[in-house]
Amino acid sequence: MPQNTDQPDIMQTLTVNLGDRSYPIHIGPGLLDRADLILPHLAQKRVFIVTNTTVGPLYLDRLSRTLADAGVRITSVVLPDGEAYKNLETLNLIFDALLTDRAERKTTLVALGGGVIGDITGFAAASYQRGVPFIQVPTTLLSQVDSSVGGKTGVNHPLGKNMIGAFWQPQLVLADTDSLNTLPDRELSAGMAEIIKYGLITDAGFFGWLEANIARLMTRDTAALTEAIYRSCDNKARVVAADEREAGLRALLNLGHTFGHAIEAGMGYGNWLHGEAVAAGTMLACDLSCRMGLFTRADCDRAAALFKAANLPTVAPALDAAEYLRHMGEDKKVEGGKLRFVLLRAIGEAFVSESPADLLQQTLTEAVA
Amino acid sequence: MPQNTDQPDIMQTLTVNLGDRSYPIHIGPGLLDRADLILPHLAQKRVFIVTNTTVGPLYLDRLSRTLADAGVRITSVVLPDGEAYKNLETLNLIFDALLTDRAERKTTLVALGGGVIGDITGFAAASYQRGVPFIQVPTTLLSQVDSSVGGKTGVNHPLGKNMIGAFWQPQLVLADTDSLNTLPDRELSAGMAEIIKYGLITDAGFFGWLEANIARLMTRDTAALTEAIYRSCDNKARVVAADEREAGLRALLNLGHTFGHAIEAGMGYGNWLHGEAVAAGTMLACDLSCRMGLFTRADCDRAAALFKAANLPTVAPALDAAEYLRHMGEDKKVEGGKLRFVLLRAIGEAFVSESPADLLQQTLTEAVA
Repeated sequence: MPQNTDQPDIMQTLTVNLGDRSYPIHIGPGLLDRADLILPHLAQKRVFIVTNTTVGPLYLDRLSRTLADAGVRITSVVLPDGEAYKNLETLNLIFDALLTDRAERKTTLVALGGGVIGDITGFAAASYQRGVPFIQVPTTLLSQVDSSVGGKTGVNHPLGKNMIGAFWQPQLVLADTDSLNTLPDRELSAGMAEIIKYGLITDAGFFGWLEANIARLMTRDTAALTEAIYRSCDNKARVVAADEREAGLRALLNLGHTFGHAIEAGMGYGNWLHGEAVAAGTMLACDLSCRMGLFTRADCDRAAALFKAANLPTVAPALDAAEYLRHMGEDKKVEGGKLRFVLLRAIGEAFVSESPADLLQQTLTEAVA
Repeated sequence: MPQNTDQPDIMQTLTVNLGDRSYPIHIGPGLLDRADLILPHLAQKRVFIVTNTTVGPLYLDRLSRTLADAGVRITSVVLPDGEAYKNLETLNLIFDALLTDRAERKTTLVALGGGVIGDITGFAAASYQRGVPFIQVPTTLLSQVDSSVGGKTGVNHPLGKNMIGAFWQPQLVLADTDSLNTLPDRELSAGMAEIIKYGLITDAGFFGWLEANIARLMTRDTAALTEAIYRSCDNKARVVAADEREAGLRALLNLGHTFGHAIEAGMGYGNWLHGEAVAAGTMLACDLSCRMGLFTRADCDRAAALFKAANLPTVAPALDAAEYLRHMGEDKKVEGGKLRFVLLRAIGEAFVSESPADLLQQTLTEAVA
């Protein structure tokens, strides 16, 4: 079978340990050509590849050829591109295709694209006939380090983001670093926001590595990207393995996300990229941590410097504080009506806490643009 | 707290054993008044009751009063009644209500109604914020013995029944036999079809009990109904506990359903009740089992006699055999393109097998009306 093995030694593999739902993540160049990595995970030589109008023209033929040459029958479903289409109506287009072409219970859904494609295809896989296998082939940096790990799938509702979905684990994740070569600069940066986040949450060593290697990463050095994706997935996988259904520890992954979701909602979804909102949101969390006497301004500055080196915004937009609070109230992390935040007590040491209302108010008025 | 305990000794309880997703099923009269049975299962004194325009006027006030008197805050969602509304659009009405009134992750969804309400509410609970708790309060005989046990939830798609859904277990099932007093005769019979099915599949003793008690059941004797529901749920619960995700044993519960779904589809959904189609479909499965030399005509006749005593059809409509096959091809039980059936080798002994095409053809042409 065809293999692009000009850089085989660069591929890294890690396993997400979830008992009988454990799965491997392969990271490196040329993986779209590696039928040998995919075939062992197909229960049936039949797949539906779900992609979008942006990624499809770039990579659908290549992945299809890899699978077809290995005797796999393929139906492809090309969805419109964008977060605006991450909804029940678009989900139903996948169901239409699955039923029209008679997907069975052992048929595998393959998500070829970024986070939206992964989330919506994963939810289709979780729900079609109450659950069929799926494989993630994330093609953006953000989806390679974030949405492809952890089993969160779903769609948006007009009244809230990611409000409808399921926890559903893939059989396999193939993160082909070659696909990052066609990624717009702004999206590369947005992915870097999540990578930096892992360092801040639990891995000061990785944060230091990122400070030393950010220039190589921004020039898309394959080996550096492979290492950064591996270490990000490894960080996330360990958190997810310890807390699959988001009861506790997993909440740490939401560093910057409560503020970030408010920024995205307040500015209108799509105007700020998710990663950009997470970067600015993380700086708000850093600021709030400082005001609570937990975190130093010097560490705040280190975080800001790394985000800036990744061409990310470090100052949140000056929405009205009340608007921030309103958007944060819609967030899934509300429990018993109280707002809880992921805060920092050092680089690499995140924790969850409620926050005094007055300090939160200060952050929302003084730390914004 | 208020309790209707005029017949407390009639209530029966069984536990569905599914590890940390185990849950109790309480069966008996007056249970809609029993806040004491519900409260221990609420993670938060906040519920959304989902019902329909038929059941709501009969029982919503009573269940709401029971919960409100116990300090539970309630939002009710009243959906249009009928299988035609078991779809993604109606599901979205539930999501609209949950988001508008800010249901949280510990908020419980309560399904008050028949199988459609249970299935759609269960899927809403499985999907809202990737999973919230739910409680089943089935008000029809069919839902009390079938759809409330086993964790199957979902909605229909224009191209197939129950094609979109999730396995999601309730915290609790309350089967109030008083609610059967308002059930139309035809729906009582339809529920009886599933009850008889349990006897045929794995429990010859129960089948004999049903033959002896069918007259009491048809006059809605509370004690007889409680016993029949208990034994049905117990049969189903044991099968489900052994095979939660339908890998093998659980397929036996589909006795009569491959044919039955074809009858429902061929006659237009809603023209035959599900239970009616299952009764006639089970007789086709009996006939096919006879033709394969596995089952006796005498046992066929016993099955038919019991269905008849429950006022159920025992002869399937004379659809074209090709139409039967086409509808059965859409069924979820297709694997690798081959049709497999639940067949009988005796009353109380069902098993799964492929069937010779010629004998299947005979059944579909000679055993129909």
